[in-house]
Amino acid sequence: MIIPNFDDVRAAHARIGPYIHHTPILTSSYLDSLSGAKLFFKCENLQKAGAFKVRGACNAVFGLSDNDAKAGVATHSSGNHALSLSYAAGRRGIPVTVVMPHTAPDAKKAAVRGYGGRIVECEPSTSSREAVFARVVAETGAEFVHPYNDHRVIAGQATCAKELIEEIGALDAVIAPIGGGGMISGCCLTLSTLAPHVKIYAGEPENADDAHRSLKAGHIIADDAPQTVADGLKVPLKDLTWHFVSRHVEDILTVSEEEIIAAMRLAWQRLKIVLEASSAVALAAVLKHRETFADQKVGIIVTGGNVDLDKLPWLAGCNNQRSVGT
Amino acid sequence: MIIPNFDDVRAAHARIGPYIHHTPILTSSYLDSLSGAKLFFKCENLQKAGAFKVRGACNAVFGLSDNDAKAGVATHSSGNHALSLSYAAGRRGIPVTVVMPHTAPDAKKAAVRGYGGRIVECEPSTSSREAVFARVVAETGAEFVHPYNDHRVIAGQATCAKELIEEIGALDAVIAPIGGGGMISGCCLTLSTLAPHVKIYAGEPENADDAHRSLKAGHIIADDAPQTVADGLKVPLKDLTWHFVSRHVEDILTVSEEEIIAAMRLAWQRLKIVLEASSAVALAAVLKHRETFADQKVGIIVTGGNVDLDKLPWLAGCNNQRSVGT
Repeated sequence: MIIPNFDDVRAAHARIGPYIHHTPILTSSYLDSLSGAKLFFKCENLQKAGAFKVRGACNAVFGLSDNDAKAGVATHSSGNHALSLSYAAGRRGIPVTVVMPHTAPDAKKAAVRGYGGRIVECEPSTSSREAVFARVVAETGAEFVHPYNDHRVIAGQATCAKELIEEIGALDAVIAPIGGGGMISGCCLTLSTLAPHVKIYAGEPENADDAHRSLKAGHIIADDAPQTVADGLKVPLKDLTWHFVSRHVEDILTVSEEEIIAAMRLAWQRLKIVLEASSAVALAAVLKHRETFADQKVGIIVTGGNVDLDKLPWLAGCNNQRSVGT
Repeated sequence: MIIPNFDDVRAAHARIGPYIHHTPILTSSYLDSLSGAKLFFKCENLQKAGAFKVRGACNAVFGLSDNDAKAGVATHSSGNHALSLSYAAGRRGIPVTVVMPHTAPDAKKAAVRGYGGRIVECEPSTSSREAVFARVVAETGAEFVHPYNDHRVIAGQATCAKELIEEIGALDAVIAPIGGGGMISGCCLTLSTLAPHVKIYAGEPENADDAHRSLKAGHIIADDAPQTVADGLKVPLKDLTWHFVSRHVEDILTVSEEEIIAAMRLAWQRLKIVLEASSAVALAAVLKHRETFADQKVGIIVTGGNVDLDKLPWLAGCNNQRSVGT
């Protein structure tokens, strides 16, 4: 296990700079009054490929030697990491293979292909995914880039909190959603160096609260197949992300499905940004825990905005969509 | 007719500065490749009250003498100007009365009241609106702030293009949607001074193409009750906005309802921002007229993001909404 340090973060920031957006930070008087806190939304939904994960993906891809890069990169994901790795590989001009279940939505497959990713399908089971992925790596010699449990990926994600602190200065707390823990680990890495007084919180669905339970138990607990609208947060902590979470996270705050959907709609309505249900978990946690954040300056990482616009969770029973445009 | 000049714009920018957001400018490689141009989206949907109109409203409100301000301000509008004027008056702590038809959506009434605006309802006819408004002004002595045909309002809107040019520098063209012409007039005022080589275009719905026909005819033509999804663009040009449009606008490009909805969905999907149908008209025009904008650096003013999230135009037949949260 290679543990990244802040020099790696500085290096990552310089390495990925030409390939990412320096995303804006938004504020809202209404959400401040609703939450009782002063909120700073770091908008990674406005990032390249619509999610913060391009930071880690670009750091991994652009850190490869020319020789290693020739064989390309590979991963197993049907979410934002697949898209982000495809984006990063495309920017470097190297091959990228994504193993995803054939049951993944067509929109996700199309998005990955749109960025130049080659998809190899597997059955929707862990055994099939692992077998197919092993075959792909054996055939291509591609470099595996894990969605979050990778020191290069975490150093890349850490550049997000670095930008936040450099722009806003003193904050009392930072909160991000937690799934596998890549963004949270990046926040821990950066803030423990740049601003160690900042309290780090994570938001998590009650329906997928494995990280919350892990923190309470003092060791990793993984759920099998959690059911939540926050589809990006179903994955478990791994050893590298647990290293950071167990040492630096103040608390992991859980929220219900209804609270997630309400926060998502509220952000669309008031901030005028498109963010995913998974991303709304952080805001939902802040609104739920007023006493924790009262009168504080809180950075909220808005992790992504890749949403199916024909299937919005607050619109139940909408089957007749006229899909105009793409 | 008082015609604002660029000194008024500088004064406006200093006057309104504490009350508005300096909104971000977003770019998208995908939309660049789709359009053939290099696009810069000035995001006034991320502005206070979700629309650029707070600029003009704040300039009018904060330019009042203390004595005049006591009696408050008033307007007739059910759209973004009503909201913006309520916001501005609230910031100054003065009364604001909005005359709107009782048929206006509940969401719009609630939004105005949320900003502290007092609503006086009228029948959905011009005669009733004018009679009721006259009564309100007679009773309150409030200062009338027209939604767009007002030199203070135009000077305020002009600060938007000022920020765009100051941040991006050289542009070949700027395009905004046109309804009454307030934003376009502001663009004309600023660009004719700061960057006179920049070509100014407007986008307009085919279904409400009165400004397009006016420009062709050389005099104002007004439509009676145009039907378009771009509900903010139904109003006609007036003498002050015609002054600017007739002198400085290169062309007014019209787009169909389908093109507007497609561009709206595309912006939500790719830019990850919530913008209104009215605001999507500018992007729709750029996408439709590739030859006009080919290889150019184009500023697109994203005018607002006040949308009913339960009634998205690309989702036909959605009546069963579970409205969670506000």
